[in-house]
Amino acid sequence: MERYDIAIIGTGPAGVSAAITATVRNKRVLLLGSARMSDKVGKAHQVDNYPGLPHISGADFAARLKAHLDEMGIAITEKRVGAVYAMGDYYALQLDEDMVEASTVILATGVVSAKSLPGEERFLGRGVSYCATCDARLYRGKTVAVLGSAADAAEEAEFLAQVVEKVLYFPVGKAPEPKEGANLVIVRELPEAVLGEKAVTGLKTREGEHRVDGVFILRDAVQADRLVPGLRMDENHVAVDLMMRTNLPGCFACGDIAGKPYQYVKAAGQGNVAALSAVSYLAETAKAKEE
Amino acid sequence: MERYDIAIIGTGPAGVSAAITATVRNKRVLLLGSARMSDKVGKAHQVDNYPGLPHISGADFAARLKAHLDEMGIAITEKRVGAVYAMGDYYALQLDEDMVEASTVILATGVVSAKSLPGEERFLGRGVSYCATCDARLYRGKTVAVLGSAADAAEEAEFLAQVVEKVLYFPVGKAPEPKEGANLVIVRELPEAVLGEKAVTGLKTREGEHRVDGVFILRDAVQADRLVPGLRMDENHVAVDLMMRTNLPGCFACGDIAGKPYQYVKAAGQGNVAALSAVSYLAETAKAKEE
Repeated sequence: MERYDIAIIGTGPAGVSAAITATVRNKRVLLLGSARMSDKVGKAHQVDNYPGLPHISGADFAARLKAHLDEMGIAITEKRVGAVYAMGDYYALQLDEDMVEASTVILATGVVSAKSLPGEERFLGRGVSYCATCDARLYRGKTVAVLGSAADAAEEAEFLAQVVEKVLYFPVGKAPEPKEGANLVIVRELPEAVLGEKAVTGLKTREGEHRVDGVFILRDAVQADRLVPGLRMDENHVAVDLMMRTNLPGCFACGDIAGKPYQYVKAAGQGNVAALSAVSYLAETAKAKEE
Repeated sequence: MERYDIAIIGTGPAGVSAAITATVRNKRVLLLGSARMSDKVGKAHQVDNYPGLPHISGADFAARLKAHLDEMGIAITEKRVGAVYAMGDYYALQLDEDMVEASTVILATGVVSAKSLPGEERFLGRGVSYCATCDARLYRGKTVAVLGSAADAAEEAEFLAQVVEKVLYFPVGKAPEPKEGANLVIVRELPEAVLGEKAVTGLKTREGEHRVDGVFILRDAVQADRLVPGLRMDENHVAVDLMMRTNLPGCFACGDIAGKPYQYVKAAGQGNVAALSAVSYLAETAKAKEE
């Protein structure tokens, strides 16, 4: 299996900055995220404090980041990351139905603003999933709920409907909605809890209860310690040091996910540091292997 | 005496970024440094990894930073900072022959690459000075050595010659040299140590010894803990946390002075964080006073 030097998850200013610096340093980079760049950036009204680009709109800023990537020949891989596993001297990333390997990982996924649902954490991996493409086949012949707030939640739900018996789609926020069909129903109720004993058996809403075998929670970002088992958090953020190192060797974090303030230039700066720390880590581990 | 909210020392990417963000947040900012911006930036051949500005020359980047300041109406005060004293609830800054006050200080002076001279630290304040304009009058009727590596060392030496009895100028590196005159002599020898017992009595060079009453060491940057007595260092860098706080309440550091990597976007990101930390500190102290 091909192994990247550095897998970067997220295409906001932190992830883009990390990808640029890692590429300048001649590393094999896999940049994962939305090609429309960070939604947060694109929707920003105006950015006044990114030094060198006074009074730039969020959309223009996102376009400039994209242009910088294009000019350096850095591609964005638009796959949803289901999980990242520390395998000792490398990381295994679950991307839709594929697995890829990378020697190091840089987390730049932004912060999860939504609170988690009661039962969500408890049933993670036992009926709760963050990735339709990854786990759809586990629910052949079954009924699943989709809680859709991610920009691509509608697409994912439509894909699920091709595989599973029935999809109940609960719109959350302003994300585009899927087309209803024979086995895809939109339910306009407010999800309140995931129900079950050993595994998921239902979804409780403000309005009632639904029997389901699985709950797909499709947010734009997954809380980092659920994405990367074993990752140490500091409340809602990944715990990092000044070099953007996490508690897992070879795993770095930057941008909003690494703490406040939530600012573009801070994110870009941390992305740069994370990339150079990954470069140093790669050099050290290569040297250790030679000895 | 007027008191600024935030005094920012340094006009590289870190200081400029801090000034921009502090101004966006409506703080009274004093930005101290060279109006030609950081020399390091201006001389950089090409910057490839400042996200949003691909393949920009150092000179163009410096011009963009300056334009951003101009557009926001942020002035640069071109005075040399002789010392920064923590006074309890504010800081006193010695600027040439003036003193100014600021509630908070952000250090963004870059790193000192030169090693310090034997005797330099020992005789600091007892014959060793980093600021001609600040300390010239202490040497009326006396002989001083000037070790000039700063861009403005020649000017400072010429000013000293107007005040003191005699100036021996030792050129260090490639800085412009002063005009020789009746009491200003250029000595092409390599300084090796500051000599003295209780106070400075001479300068040792590779070639010999010179009797002097004072030694002015005019580098582009002064090591931070000498500029700010009591500041905690981590080897050559100011010790900071992720919010760019130093051990002194109300004093922040960012950019190269706060540690590696020495990168523009990292510096700009840290400047932003330092400014927002200063803003928070101002709010907290204002609140504490009200209570």
